[in-house]
This record gives sequence, C-alpha cells and structure tokens, in this order.
Amino acid sequence: MASPASGNAVVGQAGGPTVVINQSLVGVIEEAQKFPHIKNLLGARHGVRGIINEQFFDLNRQPKSMLELVARTPAAALGATRDKPDKEYCERIFNVFRKNDVRYFFYIGGNDSAETANIVSTMAQDAKYELRVIHVPKTIDNDLLVTDHCPGYGSAAKFVASAFIGDNLDNRALKGVKINIIMGRNAGFLTAASILARQRPDDGPHLVYLPERPFDIDQFVKDVQEVFDRYGRCLVAVSEGIADKDGKLWAEKVSVLRQENLARDAFGNLQLSAGAGSLADYLAGTLRNRSKNITRVRSDTFGYLQRSFPGYESEVDAWEARLVGQMAVSYSLDDTPAGSVALVRLPSTTYTVGTKLIGLREVAPEKPPKTKEMPAEYINEAGNNVLNSFREYVGPLVGDLPKVGWLEQVAP
Amino acid sequence: MASPASGNAVVGQAGGPTVVINQSLVGVIEEAQKFPHIKNLLGARHGVRGIINEQFFDLNRQPKSMLELVARTPAAALGATRDKPDKEYCERIFNVFRKNDVRYFFYIGGNDSAETANIVSTMAQDAKYELRVIHVPKTIDNDLLVTDHCPGYGSAAKFVASAFIGDNLDNRALKGVKINIIMGRNAGFLTAASILARQRPDDGPHLVYLPERPFDIDQFVKDVQEVFDRYGRCLVAVSEGIADKDGKLWAEKVSVLRQENLARDAFGNLQLSAGAGSLADYLAGTLRNRSKNITRVRSDTFGYLQRSFPGYESEVDAWEARLVGQMAVSYSLDDTPAGSVALVRLPSTTYTVGTKLIGLREVAPEKPPKTKEMPAEYINEAGNNVLNSFREYVGPLVGDLPKVGWLEQVAP
Repeated sequence: MASPASGNAVVGQAGGPTVVINQSLVGVIEEAQKFPHIKNLLGARHGVRGIINEQFFDLNRQPKSMLELVARTPAAALGATRDKPDKEYCERIFNVFRKNDVRYFFYIGGNDSAETANIVSTMAQDAKYELRVIHVPKTIDNDLLVTDHCPGYGSAAKFVASAFIGDNLDNRALKGVKINIIMGRNAGFLTAASILARQRPDDGPHLVYLPERPFDIDQFVKDVQEVFDRYGRCLVAVSEGIADKDGKLWAEKVSVLRQENLARDAFGNLQLSAGAGSLADYLAGTLRNRSKNITRVRSDTFGYLQRSFPGYESEVDAWEARLVGQMAVSYSLDDTPAGSVALVRLPSTTYTVGTKLIGLREVAPEKPPKTKEMPAEYINEAGNNVLNSFREYVGPLVGDLPKVGWLEQVAP
Repeated sequence: MASPASGNAVVGQAGGPTVVINQSLVGVIEEAQKFPHIKNLLGARHGVRGIINEQFFDLNRQPKSMLELVARTPAAALGATRDKPDKEYCERIFNVFRKNDVRYFFYIGGNDSAETANIVSTMAQDAKYELRVIHVPKTIDNDLLVTDHCPGYGSAAKFVASAFIGDNLDNRALKGVKINIIMGRNAGFLTAASILARQRPDDGPHLVYLPERPFDIDQFVKDVQEVFDRYGRCLVAVSEGIADKDGKLWAEKVSVLRQENLARDAFGNLQLSAGAGSLADYLAGTLRNRSKNITRVRSDTFGYLQRSFPGYESEVDAWEARLVGQMAVSYSLDDTPAGSVALVRLPSTTYTVGTKLIGLREVAPEKPPKTKEMPAEYINEAGNNVLNSFREYVGPLVGDLPKVGWLEQVAP
C-alpha cells in the first residue's frame, strides 16, 4: 500500500440543509487533525462556489468548544450551494486544487454532490494528479442508492413523527380532517415516517400518500370520507411529490390551475416547496366542496422546519452523521482514489451500523434510477397507506419520541 | 366568610389546543382532590357539548402516573369544542349542573369560554343556586385582557423562536428570501416572538409584519428588496392576520383573487389557517415577479405545529399552566361566585409571577376591545419590525432556546 499523499484538504457542504450536516463537517475536522499527511484543512464557503472563488475558512484554527456547538447547529456552517458544476466548472475546481496543493477533497451532500466529486476525481486521475475524493452522504429525503439510510433523515423523520403525534392529539381534541404536506420530491421515506405517531388503534395518520403511487383526487375524496365516517375525524400525510397516473406532479397541476409559475432550480427540478402551500389548500378545498358532513378541513405544509428545526435532532442520526465524516477521512488514507461512505445495517437483534466505502458511480450512476424509492413491501395494496412493518426500518433511526398520556374512558 | 358549598365539580376545555392546556387540567384535578367539599370531579367531554350531552370522564379515578403524562401531553385531553353557547344552550348547561348537584365549574379556554362562564354564573345567581364558576385562561395568541400573559403562549413562542433560529441558519446556508406565516388572528404576540431568534447583528427575522399595523404590498416588496440588497438574503415573519389599511384581511383578499371560499367557524371568525398556505404562496409569488435579482423565494406556514408540537414546551409555561389550574380551585373556595385567574408579573429583578382573581367581565367585556393587542411601544415606526425591548417581555416566558455555533471568519 502506497503512503498517502501529503498536502492540503478541502471540505465543502452542498444542497438543502439537514439538522446534522455539521456533525459530518466536525467529524471531518476532528479526524483530519489526527493525520500529519493532511496539512491545512480548508472549508469551502458555499460549496463548489467557494472553491472556484477561493473563499475558504481555516478549519484548523477553530476553537474546540465552538466546534462542538457547530456540530449541534442545523444547516451548513460553511454555507451550501445548489450549483451543479459542468466539466468547465470542474476544471476550475481542479485548477484551484492544484494551485493550493489540495490532495484531499471531502464533499458533504446528495447524489448531485457525488456526481461533482466523480467528475473532479476523474479529471485528477487523467492528469495523474494525486487526489483523494470522498463523498459524505446527507439528505433528509433518504433516497441515496446503496446506503441503508442517509444521515439527516433520522432527525427529519423524528420531527415529522413528533409533529404527527401532536397533530393527532389536536385532531382528536377538535375533530375534523387535517392534511399535512411533507417534503420528499421522489421518495416517500419522510412522509412514511409519520406512521411512527400511531400508538392507539384509532391514531392517525389514517391515510398516507407517497410519490411512489399515483394519486387520484376522486379516490382521495373517497378514502377520506371512509375514514371520517368511521372515526369522525381523519389525519392525512401527503408527500409534496405526489403525481397522477401519468406521472404529472399534483403541485404543478394545481399551479397551472391557478396560473402561477413555480420556480425551478438550476437542476431543472421543480421547487415543490414553492407550491406546497397551494397544494395543501387545494386538497383541503376539494374535500370541503365534495365530501359529506365534513365541516372542519385544515391543511399545513411542514416546510423547512423538517430540515432545520434546532435542538430536536435524533441522537442516532447525530452520531452517525459524525461517524460518516470521520470515516471519510479514514478512507481517504487508503489506496482507493475516490468513493462515497455508505451506512450498513448489521444483522443483529439490536440496531447496529457499520460503514463501507462504495464507488461514486454507485451513488451517482449515469443512468436512472439515480435515487432510491420506498420499497414496495412497506406500501399497502391500495397505495394509500404505509404498513407498520416500516417501523422496524425507521424506528431505530429516529430514537425516542415524546411520550403522551390519555384519560381512562371511565364514566362517573 | 361562608363555608364553601359541598357538591360535585365539572371541568372542561375549549377552543384551539395548546401544548400545556392539560397542565391546567391536571392542576384542577390534583387541587380538587385536596378539598372534601368537592366530591366527584367530572371532566366534560368536548367542553360545553359534553355537559349538555352529559358525557363525562370520572377524574377522581385516573391513575396518578397517567395524570403526570397527560399533563405533558398537548391538546385538550378531555376534548375541546368551538361551540359558543347562547342563552338557551347555557340553560341546558345549568339544568345539567342542577340535576347532578354541580357546585363548581372550571372552564379552561379563551375569552369566548369566559363569556360562557359568565352567562352560566349569572343564571345561577339569578336562580339563587350556589355555583362557583372559575375561568382558567389559555391561548397561544396571548391576547386575553388584564392578564400579563396567557398560558400556552410561552410554549408556542418557544416553538416559533426555535423555528426561526433554524430557518435563519437555513437562509444563511442557502441564501434567498424566506417568508414564514405565523398564527395570530388579531394580535401579533406570537409573530413577534420570532425576534428571539436574533443572535448576530445580521440574523433574521429582518422584517416582522403584525396585524396591529396595515400591510401594504408595495411597501412589502420595497422592504424586502432593501434587506436583500444589504445582506443578500431576507427572512420575514408575517402574521396570518395582516390586513390592509381598510382593515381587510390579506388572507381573504388573496382568497378572493383565487375565487376560493375560506371556511368560517361558528363564531363568524375567518379560519385563517385555511388560507395561510395561499397567502404564503401569494407573497412569495409577488416577490418573485416584482423584485430585482432575487431568484430564491420560499414561504412556509407553521400551522398547527405552533399549538401542538409535543416534547418541546416552555418549562415556565408548563409550570404556570399548572399553577392557574390549581389556583382556580383555590379561588373557588372563597366567597366570590365567579372570576378568571390572571397572571401578574411582579416587580422584581428576576422573573416572578403571582395570580389574582379578576371578574369574568374583565376578560370577556360586553364591548370592544375584547382582546389585547401588542403594545405600540414594541413596534417600530415603519410598522415592519418588532423592537428588541420586546425580548424583556417574552424572553422569560420562553426560557432557554437551542444554542447554536458558527465558524470563525478566519481565512487561511
């Protein structure tokens, strides 16, 4: 095994915030300081944009006590970016690396970041420039390929499950129909986490609609009416990414109905959060007009709170996010020039994880599917609910949820 | 002083949930059990509706350990109601009281509940039927008259402030304009609590719009542009109850624009939460169309999470909510036939509160103003921000907020 290259390192953060993304950053910082091969550790301000503009934090000169606080702070402390570098952009990155003797690049982000990491790594290999590139996974959507789950998801799932515990009690106290729109463009993992709120047999969410199954508005009205007729109330979890049978997004359909223009980001992705409020109001309005005997219908979008609410992270998620940061540095000292850190759930009676290094092309493949969907085994046949078996997957990632009590049904 | 009447007691909960409304319920239960004058303590299911339908919980037969859990559980454990009883409805309440030898009535709710309490109390006095009626205040809006603040507000304020801490970091990491719609129909107290998120000089919320000041859409666009030009980002707190200079609600104006019908509740109050999503999208859309160089504009409504998110209550608020429940029972054993428990902030260097019993007509007056607004001293002259002096009022009610860290701005 060749001795690892000696030189500087760059770490960057990209994409939407998570509550634990800075755990990964601090994991990289504390681990990098252990190895003399890594000289200066530079923090790129706002991801790749900070690299090409040569705007860096000196991460070796941060007070240790402040770093611990940063680790527990939501949203990229270095600043993030949604820039998706093309080949020319990546050449600029590579030139900055060469100029600054950068031999290690750690990029914390989703599959777009892995794609960027891959282009830069290939460029370095072609130029026979020794560079280790390690992608550190993060996304609240939990839709990265290969890894058992993604750092950031557990905390977002804890927020969503907790919100549904409260909203279920709210809906019991003042009966009616309540619809909550949850983040998740292509994958229903976060929406599905709402089922952790169920404790009593009649607890909500009673219906769960995911992007993985076509959403039909007539069936939706029928489903809600059925639950309402049984319980006198109905709590519904809806993913912002629901689409009709032709794959057309409902957020977009509603927007067209209202002659609005939804913003699109640089990736061409529809910014669903921009229209989630209208989608929520549309679903509520449809129920108000078409249901029978349902007078109270309300809807909320949980929005950015899901990815940045402070002081309420999952402890397991925080620990794992730190771990993948540390392991990224550790793997960078091995022979492999590039890779992505994946979490592996170990066969055990109690929840245990390990990590492994996978190829960048495994997490950022050239051809679809580029992301993971909710496995069909967790979705009911009607496509309007998530099975309780999903608790086994998501429960350990979320950890303890608030305990609630209720009065005994004793009449005087 | 006459000896207190011996007989049964009824406790009920009304209106929108709070996170600590069951602290007040458990305060009533534990205190009532101390006094032999109070025989059975009946819990009315869904407020006054449970009384007229004679649907009660036996509150003396609840396990003590479960009661402690109930106290920490959001949303009325007895169930709530939005029924606003008229005279005939109150007569039915009174008849049930007579039939069941009810001599004590504790009603946990807002000013509508105090109004109901007052009608029933007057009826009893006219009939020379000995009945003690005590109103126990609760509302996240913090808009009840006389009392220094309302149980339920501190926890909702903690949620909003925390959400803004996270969202401010989110907005730093990925720059743009972010608008959050906060609950509060007539009073801006909850929206104003967002300013607790400010820690660094450039922290948001940078603009705060309250129902107490007219909202002008042109001025709004100008305000946001100015902040954005200075910081490259802008975080905005908007009350759902903002109105134009003629007092017309913006949520309603937007709704008319979209030819939707917003639901109205039995009180004739506009259900703002029903249209908050559209208001959020409207404000974001207007900025997208009319601002310069602002590409990222997002909006969220915090919705019901503000009133029912579990496991995140303000400790002071929880303690005070318990206190007003206990004191309601204590006051009921005095001579006064009826009243409402008010919190009094004592002159002291550290935050200290006491309680006093005020008249029901003080909290539910016959003529407007029936609720309290944000004192003008806390609002800036332009009417687009809340002054930091408001921290002194709201800070102690919220208690500790999550601590966050940031990287030192040292370049390598």
